[in-house]
Amino acid sequence: MKSFIHDDFLLTSEVAKKLYHQHAKKIPIIDYHCHLDPKEIYEDKKFNNLFDAWLSGDHYKWRLMRANGVTEDYITGNKPDFDKFSKWAEVVPHLVGNPLYHWTHFELKRFFDIDTLLSPKTAESIYKEVNQKLETLTARKLIEISNVDVICTTDDPIDSLEWHEKLKNDQTFKTKVLPAFRPDKAINIELSWFQEWVLKLSKVVGYPLSNLDSFKQALVERIDYFHERGCLLSDHALDVVMYEKATPEEVAAIYEKAIQHEELSSREIRKFKGYMLVFFGVEYNKRGWVQQYHIGALRNLSERMLKNLGPDTGFDGINDGLIARPLSHLLDALDSTGELPKTVLYTLNSRDFEVAITMMAAFQGGAVKLLLLGTF
Amino acid sequence: MKSFIHDDFLLTSEVAKKLYHQHAKKIPIIDYHCHLDPKEIYEDKKFNNLFDAWLSGDHYKWRLMRANGVTEDYITGNKPDFDKFSKWAEVVPHLVGNPLYHWTHFELKRFFDIDTLLSPKTAESIYKEVNQKLETLTARKLIEISNVDVICTTDDPIDSLEWHEKLKNDQTFKTKVLPAFRPDKAINIELSWFQEWVLKLSKVVGYPLSNLDSFKQALVERIDYFHERGCLLSDHALDVVMYEKATPEEVAAIYEKAIQHEELSSREIRKFKGYMLVFFGVEYNKRGWVQQYHIGALRNLSERMLKNLGPDTGFDGINDGLIARPLSHLLDALDSTGELPKTVLYTLNSRDFEVAITMMAAFQGGAVKLLLLGTF
Amino acid sequence: MKSFIHDDFLLTSEVAKKLYHQHAKKIPIIDYHCHLDPKEIYEDKKFNNLFDAWLSGDHYKWRLMRANGVTEDYITGNKPDFDKFSKWAEVVPHLVGNPLYHWTHFELKRFFDIDTLLSPKTAESIYKEVNQKLETLTARKLIEISNVDVICTTDDPIDSLEWHEKLKNDQTFKTKVLPAFRPDKAINIELSWFQEWVLKLSKVVGYPLSNLDSFKQALVERIDYFHERGCLLSDHALDVVMYEKATPEEVAAIYEKAIQHEELSSREIRKFKGYMLVFFGVEYNKRGWVQQYHIGALRNLSERMLKNLGPDTGFDGINDGLIARPLSHLLDALDSTGELPKTVLYTLNSRDFEVAITMMAAFQGGAVKLLLLGTF
Repeated sequence: MKSFIHDDFLLTSEVAKKLYHQHAKKIPIIDYHCHLDPKEIYEDKKFNNLFDAWLSGDHYKWRLMRANGVTEDYITGNKPDFDKFSKWAEVVPHLVGNPLYHWTHFELKRFFDIDTLLSPKTAESIYKEVNQKLETLTARKLIEISNVDVICTTDDPIDSLEWHEKLKNDQTFKTKVLPAFRPDKAINIELSWFQEWVLKLSKVVGYPLSNLDSFKQALVERIDYFHERGCLLSDHALDVVMYEKATPEEVAAIYEKAIQHEELSSREIRKFKGYMLVFFGVEYNKRGWVQQYHIGALRNLSERMLKNLGPDTGFDGINDGLIARPLSHLLDALDSTGELPKTVLYTLNSRDFEVAITMMAAFQGGAVKLLLLGTF
Repeated sequence: MKSFIHDDFLLTSEVAKKLYHQHAKKIPIIDYHCHLDPKEIYEDKKFNNLFDAWLSGDHYKWRLMRANGVTEDYITGNKPDFDKFSKWAEVVPHLVGNPLYHWTHFELKRFFDIDTLLSPKTAESIYKEVNQKLETLTARKLIEISNVDVICTTDDPIDSLEWHEKLKNDQTFKTKVLPAFRPDKAINIELSWFQEWVLKLSKVVGYPLSNLDSFKQALVERIDYFHERGCLLSDHALDVVMYEKATPEEVAAIYEKAIQHEELSSREIRKFKGYMLVFFGVEYNKRGWVQQYHIGALRNLSERMLKNLGPDTGFDGINDGLIARPLSHLLDALDSTGELPKTVLYTLNSRDFEVAITMMAAFQGGAVKLLLLGTF
Repeated sequence: MKSFIHDDFLLTSEVAKKLYHQHAKKIPIIDYHCHLDPKEIYEDKKFNNLFDAWLSGDHYKWRLMRANGVTEDYITGNKPDFDKFSKWAEVVPHLVGNPLYHWTHFELKRFFDIDTLLSPKTAESIYKEVNQKLETLTARKLIEISNVDVICTTDDPIDSLEWHEKLKNDQTFKTKVLPAFRPDKAINIELSWFQEWVLKLSKVVGYPLSNLDSFKQALVERIDYFHERGCLLSDHALDVVMYEKATPEEVAAIYEKAIQHEELSSREIRKFKGYMLVFFGVEYNKRGWVQQYHIGALRNLSERMLKNLGPDTGFDGINDGLIARPLSHLLDALDSTGELPKTVLYTLNSRDFEVAITMMAAFQGGAVKLLLLGTF
C-alpha cells in the first residue's frame, strides 16, 4: 500500500509535480519570521524524547487535544511524558483533514523516515524509534536537514543578542541566524507593563527616558544595535490597527502622562501608536529594513487560562476589527514623504484579504513592495 | 430516465455513499432546535391539502415567490389554495440550484413517493395525489416516517407547557417532544413590549416584579418549571452581540428605570443584556443545560411589510455587526468562574465563521464543548 | 497548437457550451453603466496606435505595471508610446491567472484577429499589425463589432448633454448612447468642492440656490432635463453607506451651514446624505428610473500619487465599512412609502455579498426588483 506521505503528496497535477520537483524542492528556506530560540540553536539542543520535541511547547497541538476532550493534566500538567504523548496519539486519528495531521506525518517521514500513521496502536513503537534517533538529531541537525539558509528570530529591542553573536562567530553552523526587531512593548502604551519596560530600556541605554525625545533616541540606538548585528526586519503586532494624526507636541505630552501612570483616553492611545509606527517605519526605511505587520489576532480569550498558564498556550482567536481606513492612513503617512519601507502584511482573518491585497497594490512603486501572507 | 431524487442523490463519491448508506441513514433525528407547534403534534394535525402543508406558513417559499414576481395576493392574500399552489409550481422550475428545489422534490419523493418534477404541467396531478395521501399522512405520521427520536420546540418562559405534558402522557406517540427555554423577551429591555411581558411573568409566578431580585427569582422559577418538564436547552437571539461589564447595583437601577418606562442609554442596554446573559448561563450550567446563541439576523427590514403581515413573513436579512470582542467577553465572563455551559453558536453570516470557530476552540475544555452551525 | 483564445474558451462543460453558443453569444450588449465619453463616440475617435487605445487611460493596466516594478515614467510619464507599450508587453506574461491576461488576448483576437500571445518577443509585430488595423477600426467600429445596443454613460447633473443630442440625431450610428445621472457632488456635502459645484448648478438653472428648497428644485429640473434626453438611470457612489433619519427643517439648516462654509458634524453629514438619497430615490421612482448604488470603494489611498496624477489613476482599494444597518434603513425609508425604485447594488467587497443579497430579497415585490453585481 502506498504510504500517506509520498513523493507526490498534495501534488495532484502534472504541472504541480513539475513545479515542485524541478523547482520548489531545491530552493533553500529563508525563514524571515519565526519564534525559534537562538540559545537553543547555539547550544544545539538535544531533545529528551518525542514528547519534548513535539508537545512540550506546541500550543497548536494542545488546542486540538483540548478540543478532543483531553484534560489539562495530560496537556500542560504533570503526567509522565509518554502518557501525554499517548494522549496525542489518541487524538491524531481524529484530525484527518486538519493540517496538523499532515504536519505530524510529514515530520515522522522526513526527519525520522517513519511511514506508519500515528495512533494508539503505533504510539509506543514510534515513540521508541524516534527517541533513539533523537540521540543524534539535535536542533542544528534538524535545521540542516531542512535546508535552511536563513532564520530570523523575534527579539525584544532590549535584548543583548548575545546568542546571535555567538552563532555568527561559530564557523561550524552554516545557517544564518539573524535577529528581528519587535518593539510591541514600546508601542502598547496602554498596557500595564509599559512603564516597567521603559525602565529596562533606560538601563540598557544608560540614561533616563523622561521625555519622548530621549525615548525615541534610545529606540534609534537599539535599531542601530540590531542593524550592526545583521537585523534586516522588524515585527509589529497590530492586533487592532490604530492610526490617528497627531503633532509631536501632542505625542510628547501623551508619553509623559503615561510615564507618570496617568490614564490615557482611547484617542490618545491611537495617536501615540500611529505616531510611533510612523517613527519606526521611517527608521526602518533609512536602513533598508522590511517591516512586518501582524494583523487580526484576538489574544488570551480565556482570562482563567491566562492566569493558569500564561499567554501563548492555545487560547487565542481571530479578531474582526475594521482595518481599511486606519491601515491605509498609516501606510499613507509613510508613503506621503516617500519613506514607506518594504512591508509584509499578515492578515489573520481571511475576510480581510481583499482589502489588504488591493491596499498593497495602491502602495506599490519603484522602491516599495508589499506582500501578503494569510497566517502568522 | 433516472429520477431527480434517487438513492445516491448528492452522494458523488464512494466514500460518501458508504458513509450515508451504512451509517448516517440509520441514525434517528434529534432535532434540538425547531419551531414546531406542540399543540399541532398532540392533536395530530391533518392538513387540508398540499397548499396547507407547504405554503400556508413557510416564509422561505414566500420569499422566493416574491423574488420571482408573484404578487402578494397569491402569497399571503385571499386567492384560493390551489391558485396559490399553482403559482408556487410556476416558480419551482426557476429554482434549480436553490436548496428549496431539492427540498421540494425530496419531500414529494420521501413522503408521497412522487418522482415527477413540480411545474405548471404537473401541478394539478401532484396536488391531487398528495391531497389524497394527506388524508392519512397526519402530523404524527410525517414525524414517524422521518425517524425522529426527539423534538425540541421553542418556548416562552411564561408558557404553561400543557401540550408538552399531554404529549409526555400519551403512550401512543414515541417521539419525545421537549420544550426549550427562549427568554429573549426578558433580555430585550429596549423593546416596547418589555414592561408588558414582565407583567405577564408576574402573573404566572404570582408576585410583583418591581426589582431585579424578584425578576431573577421569577426567571429561576420558570427555569425550574421547564427543567421539571424535560427541558434540556435554551435559545437566545443575539441579533447584535452585546456585552459590557456591570455591577449588580447598576443593573438593578437599569431594571427599575425600564419598569418605570424611563429611556435607557445604549450603554445601559448593553450592561443589562450582558448581565442577564451571564445570569442565565450560570443557571443553565447548574442544570446541565445547553445554551444556543443565534447570531447575526437583521429582522423586519421592510417596516411596511412588518405592518401588513407581521414578523417572520420573509423580510429578514443578514447583519454584519462585529462579534469578536463582545462575544468573547460574554463567554469569558461565564468561563472565568468555571460556569460556561455547553454552548451552540449559530452564526448566520458566513464571514463570521473563522472568528466563531477559533473562539470556540479557545473555550474548549474538559467539560465545555462548543459547536457551530451556519444556519438557524 | 490550439490558440489561447478559441471558440470554447472558458466553456468547460457541454451545458456551458450550449448556453453560450446557442443563447448568450447572440444577445446584444446593453451596457447600463460605463465611463465612455460621448464626445469620442460622436466624433468617432481614431486611435493613434495600440498604446493610445490600450494604455493611455487604463489605470487597471497601470496598476499591474506598478506591481511588476515598472517605473512611473513608463506608465504615466513622458517615454515614447512604443516604449511604454513594450513595458506592458514585458508585464503581460507574468499575469497568467489575472483577468487582464484574458482581456488582453480576447481583444487581440476579437478586434484584430491576432492569436499570438503578447510578450517582449511579439510586442513589435503585434504593435505594427494592430496600428495598421486601427486606421479603420475607429471608436464606432469597435462598438459595432461588439454588438452593442445601448450605452449608458455617466454624467454630472450640470452637463449640457450636447454630445448625446448630436448622437441621437445622427442616423448613421445605430447604438443608442444615453446619459446616466450621477449627482455625487450634490450629496457629498463634506467635500471642499461642494459650494463651488452648487454655484455651477445655480448658473445652469439661472437662479440662486441659497436654501434647500431651491437646491432641490434645481436638481428636479436637471432630472427632467436628463429624462427628456432619454436618461433611464442614475449612479450613486456610496463609498461609505450613511443614513440617519432627519426632518426637512434639520436638513435645510445643514444645507445653509454648508453653503456658508460652516463646519458640519459627522451626524449632520449623515442626515444630509440620507435625506438627499431618499429625495433622489423618490424622483427616480416617479419617472421609472433605475438607481445604481456603488458601495465599498476606498479611494485615493496614496495622497502623494493623488497630488501627482489626480484621481482614478490606479490608487484605489476596497473598504470594509459596515453596510447592513444604514443600507437597510435607506432602502426602507423609500420602501415605507412605496417609492423605492428599481435598484442595482454593486458591492465591491465580496464579504458583503450575503448581506446585500438577503437584503435585496427583503425588498422584492410586485414592482420592485433589486439586482446585485460584484464589480463596478
